[in-house]
Formats: sequence, C-alpha cells, structure tokens
Amino acid sequence: MINNYTVPKEFLFAVIDASIKIPNRNDIAILYSKKPCVAAGVFTKNIVKSPSVTYNMERIKYPLAYGVIVNSGNANACTGTQGMNDVIAMSQTVKDKLTITEGEIFVCSTGIIGVPLPMERIIPAINKGVSRLGQDSLMEAAKAIMTTDTFPKVLSKTLEIDGKTATISGITKGSGMISPNMATTLTFIITDAVITKSALKSALKKSIERSFNKITIDGDMSTNDTVLIFANGACDNLKIKENTPQYNVFKTALEEITMSLSNMIVKDGEGATKTICIELIGAKNQKDAEKLARKVADSMLVRTAVYGKDPNWGRIMCALGGAGVLFNPKNLEIYINNIQIVADGLGTKKEAEAACVLDAKEINLRIILKEGKYNAKIFTCDLTEEYIKINAHYTT
Amino acid sequence: MINNYTVPKEFLFAVIDASIKIPNRNDIAILYSKKPCVAAGVFTKNIVKSPSVTYNMERIKYPLAYGVIVNSGNANACTGTQGMNDVIAMSQTVKDKLTITEGEIFVCSTGIIGVPLPMERIIPAINKGVSRLGQDSLMEAAKAIMTTDTFPKVLSKTLEIDGKTATISGITKGSGMISPNMATTLTFIITDAVITKSALKSALKKSIERSFNKITIDGDMSTNDTVLIFANGACDNLKIKENTPQYNVFKTALEEITMSLSNMIVKDGEGATKTICIELIGAKNQKDAEKLARKVADSMLVRTAVYGKDPNWGRIMCALGGAGVLFNPKNLEIYINNIQIVADGLGTKKEAEAACVLDAKEINLRIILKEGKYNAKIFTCDLTEEYIKINAHYTT
Repeated sequence: MINNYTVPKEFLFAVIDASIKIPNRNDIAILYSKKPCVAAGVFTKNIVKSPSVTYNMERIKYPLAYGVIVNSGNANACTGTQGMNDVIAMSQTVKDKLTITEGEIFVCSTGIIGVPLPMERIIPAINKGVSRLGQDSLMEAAKAIMTTDTFPKVLSKTLEIDGKTATISGITKGSGMISPNMATTLTFIITDAVITKSALKSALKKSIERSFNKITIDGDMSTNDTVLIFANGACDNLKIKENTPQYNVFKTALEEITMSLSNMIVKDGEGATKTICIELIGAKNQKDAEKLARKVADSMLVRTAVYGKDPNWGRIMCALGGAGVLFNPKNLEIYINNIQIVADGLGTKKEAEAACVLDAKEINLRIILKEGKYNAKIFTCDLTEEYIKINAHYTT
Repeated sequence: MINNYTVPKEFLFAVIDASIKIPNRNDIAILYSKKPCVAAGVFTKNIVKSPSVTYNMERIKYPLAYGVIVNSGNANACTGTQGMNDVIAMSQTVKDKLTITEGEIFVCSTGIIGVPLPMERIIPAINKGVSRLGQDSLMEAAKAIMTTDTFPKVLSKTLEIDGKTATISGITKGSGMISPNMATTLTFIITDAVITKSALKSALKKSIERSFNKITIDGDMSTNDTVLIFANGACDNLKIKENTPQYNVFKTALEEITMSLSNMIVKDGEGATKTICIELIGAKNQKDAEKLARKVADSMLVRTAVYGKDPNWGRIMCALGGAGVLFNPKNLEIYINNIQIVADGLGTKKEAEAACVLDAKEINLRIILKEGKYNAKIFTCDLTEEYIKINAHYTT
C-alpha cells in the first residue's frame, strides 16, 4: 500500500532557508543516504538545459552516489559558465562537509531562468543544512522544492522481496511556474532495496514512460526536468537483477509510485479544477494511439470545454482529425465518464446527461477508434482563467 | 493599394436571415458571378470533414463555377448522409433559381457541429436570397459569415494588367467559436482578371502558404476550413498564364490580400489584446525554421507572458529547445520589438526596456539562430482570460 509515513532505511533529510527568491521559506532540500547508493536518472530532452542537468547527466554514469541537493526559487538556467561553476560548488560543499571522497551528490534547481544563483547565501545554507541531516522529514523536503504547487507531493510504498520488507519513497514538484521561467518537474525517489545499477535504470525508464511521460499541462518541456532514483541497499534483500520475479515486483511498485506522483502533478496543474484522462482505444499502432491521445490532451478547445462542463464532442473529433493520423471517422465512439456521446461518428443526443457527469472532478474521455489493437492513456487537466492569471500576472 | 470599396466587375452579392442559430441576423451570404468563373480552392487537412468540404473538394476540379453559398451558425459537420444531402440541396436550389445548367455553386458552413441544418428555413431563405442578388454589398456578406468575430473582414485591391485595371476582393471570417464546435476559417476571394484555372490554382496555393498557413490561434484545425477563389474574366485583360510577368503581378496582389486577411484574423483572435509575429532567422533548413517559429507561437507560456507584458525570454528559449530541432543555444539572439534581450544565449539585463515595448499592440519576437540561412515567420496573438471565457462559458 501507498502511504506517507514509512521512509527507506538509512536515508536522512534536511531543509534550509537560503532566501533564494523570497525570505523566510525553506528553499533548499538535501536528501542523503548514509550508505553509498546506485542511482539512475531521466532528464529533460530540451536542448536548452540547466548546467545542473548537464552535470547530473554526466555524473549519473558513475557507479556510486550519496544523494542530491535541490533548490527552488532559481532554475540556474541560461546562466553560462558561472552557472556550471555554481553547480560544482554546491555539490562539492556537500561532499566536503560530509567528507565524501567517492560517490556523487547531484544538484537540481527550479525557479527563475537567466538569473545567477545567490551563492553568497546558498553556500552557508548548505553548510548549515548538512549539519541538520536527520532532523527534517521527507515531507519537509517535498515542501522545500515546491514552486507554485499548492500542496506537497510525497508517497511511500513498502514491498516484500525474498522475505525482506523494502521501502520506496518519492517526492515531486509539479508544473509550478515562477517568473521569468517555465514549468519544471523535479522528482526524487529513494529506496533501501538492493538492486543492480542497470536493473534500477531499466525499472526507472519503464516506469517514467508510463507515468511522467504520459502527462501534459501545457505542452512545454522544461530546461530542468529531472527524475533521480537512489537505492542504498539497506534492506539487505538478495540483489535484484533484471528479468527476475523480484525485478518485476520492484518495477511494479516503482510504477505505482511514479504513476501516483505524476497524477498528483496533473491534479495540481496550474489553475486546474478537473483532471482529464484521455483513453484512446483501438489504434493501428502504438505511435498512432499516443499521437491521437496527446492531440486531444493538448487541445485548448477540449480542455476549456471540460472546464465549462460542455460535452463538446465536436472539439474532440476535430482534434483527432487534425492529429495527422489516418482513421475512419465513421467508426468513432466517444464516451465521457461512460456516457456515450458519439456512435458511428455521429452524436447520440446525450449532451444533457454528459453535461451532468462533467460535474465530476475526474473526467475520462474514452475514444474508440476500431482501427487496430493499440491503446494509449494521456493525463491532463482542464484549462481555466486561473492558468492565464498565474502565467501572465503572478510572475513578478 | 488595398481598400474596402472597389469590387470586381460582374459579381453580385446577397445576404438573408434564415435564423439558423439565432433569429434576426443575416446568416446566409451568396456570392455570384454573372459570368462563369474559373475557380480554385484550398481545404482543411483535418480528416474529419464537413460534407460541404467533401462536396467542394470534388467539384473544384470541374472547369466552371458561378459562386458560393455560405451559412454561419451551423457547421453541418458530423451530420452523416443527411449532411451531404443538405449540401446538395443548397447548391441545387441556387442553381435552379438561377437556371445554371453548367457550372458549380459551392457550399460552405461554419458554426455548431453535429446538428442537422434547419433546411425548412434555409431553402426558402435561399430562394429569397437569389432574388436579392445585387442589392447587398460584399461588406454585408462579410458580416453574414461572422461567428464570434468582433469585426467583419473585407479587402479589395486593384492592379494593372496589360493596361487594364483588374480588381481582387476578399472576405474572411476568423477563429470564432460557437458551441459545440471549433475555430473555422472561411475565406472567399473574387476577381475579374482573366486567368487560366491552373494559374489561379498555383497563385492561390502559394499565397495561402505565405498567409493562412502561417497563422495559429490555438493549434486546432477545423473540420470546415476553406479558401475559394473565383475569377470571372470580366476585366478583359490578356489571359494570365503561369510564369509570366502578368502572373507575378497577379500573384503578388493576391498575396497582399491573403496576408492582410490572415493578419486581420490574428488581430481578432479570441480574447486577443496583441498580435505576435515570431520571426525565426538563420535555421539550417526551411523545415527547422518553421518548426521552431511554430513551437514558440504555440507556446501558451510565451503567449501568456506577452499578455502580461513580461519579457520572459526563458520561456522563449525553453520553447525553442523543446521543438525537436538541433541548434547551439549559445549562439541565440532574441529581440522583442528591437530590444535585444538575449545575446550569445544569455540575458542582456534589458528586461525593464523590453517590458516597456511590450505595451505595444504589435509584438515582434525576432530569434536569430546562426545555424544557416533559412527564415520563417509565424503570426499569433496573446493568450488571455477572455479566450478561456469565450471557449468555456460563452458556448451555450
């Protein structure tokens, strides 16, 4: 089961106020394992990357790591050579203080773009933070990495591996936005399972493909998006290797964590009043299924219609038809929370019923194509005036 | 010069109130040439098409046409076999009344999707309309085809061909929206120039590529988008053929008309307070240039920032970096209305100056890539709370 309480053994947390963007708020979190970890990561594909991403992408190849230091309030992106020097300084300060000689401390940032980090406040804060390790909770770390998130996002799950109880915990921050910058997703997962680095990498990649890669808020990909996972082996189970029953147990649990965390992000989408699941059924191939589902999820017209409780199947059909995928519209079926509003490509006159179910907070748009056997699910949220306000006016 | 007053010789117009969506509004327009025309058209690539589009796409291949009948208030899309029967009936009614035995009357619709046309009101209105031909102006036709447009869009231009004065006039309707449906662009261009059908087709295709295909409001493509051009030859110039100086004169004038009409649509974008021109300079190839410019134009974060007068170059860089095009961000230059806010991929600290120029109604975002010699321009508008209101709430 998923809960907020258990955390993996031998991990310590600290949060500190470095007053990076605003004073009197913990804006740095350190996640640290007393034992060396294997680690894996997934990073933004945006070619404009924060130097922290460049640093992490290189260092994730190394065999060992101890954790990550994360700041909110400043993305340290488009900051040139100084930006990279600051990343190195942040990592090295933690390593020096903890006398880590072998093993990496990763660095992640989220917030304003194009502004140098206030290192004169950050370095003393790090030193203070390392001394606090063990005094703060994972929940406090989840709070420290928030930007415009309206609630902290933390989850834990225990699982049985060969008679031992392992734990996986994760924190994430959502599509918050602080001027002048853009949505950033940062996710940190820790576990005390014993697992090979390659098995950890493979399990993370698959679980992200099914979770964080299936959500969309505004179609923009950040300069800083990062998911990191650390496994310190404190659980003492037999080492998990790929393609074993234990690997499958671990992967399933990890998927449950990443799915739940990514759903929390959608739920906390800027200005959102509803989550929307686009379920595309029966495409000719997987690529078509994803393309069609994503086109509907990215449609501003569909998302505003859901907000306005308008069962506007014409907008859904229009989005599908414009996705660049061939299909026969005459076979289309569309359901809004189990009310069939389109049959054989034509309206079923159930707009009144469908408008009622659009009162719900969770909207499922099921689209049946009848072209083949491939399916896809993409998650998004409705589009509201509040989204515009947050991104146009709340930025200074 | 472009003006609203001259119209090509031998064209007649009529508008009628058929109370299709609301009463007491002219919602049908007929554009008719007393002389048979050659015609050309460009149609939506959405695979969910109104039967009127299917009808027009087939009939545009025929050698002769006399004009078009257009209704607003109902898109006649997703209406099955009945929809096609209604298209045929509308066209045939005009032809019968005008005793046209050879030559086409096209049919275009815009408005609600999935609702059959009220033919019991439309057929009598058409009969009445045909009797009115010549009594109404092109401006009244432009008004009759409006949906949520806030102003009618009509333009004329005269040009000299071999000592004769020809006229090109155009009307268009913008990205209006009426529930339950989506943005539709309908454009009708008429000219009295003498020109071959193939030259007309080629000139139209090129001018649309440079105008209507370069604007984006919300990234959705309608089921009904149509551009039609009619040339009745009443000007008596020597027949214009492709690849002649006369063809170039005609094509340039036509481009001027389509550019101006498409700019009017952007200006009237739902809820828009500003137009935005994304000017991408120096890509490796044309495809990259278009892809990058379009990604910035489609970015909700960039469009809300412009609305909020926030010179948020981080969002522009983020959009560029996520476009799926390889380039070196370290060479980037970005200008907002001639204020350089990014040099060598880094901020120039001119945010205050840039915020001032964002007061303007016309915003130019010039992005210099330094990867090659290919350029692109895409036009859009800012994204405001009003857009959300129109599309979420004003739909019933």
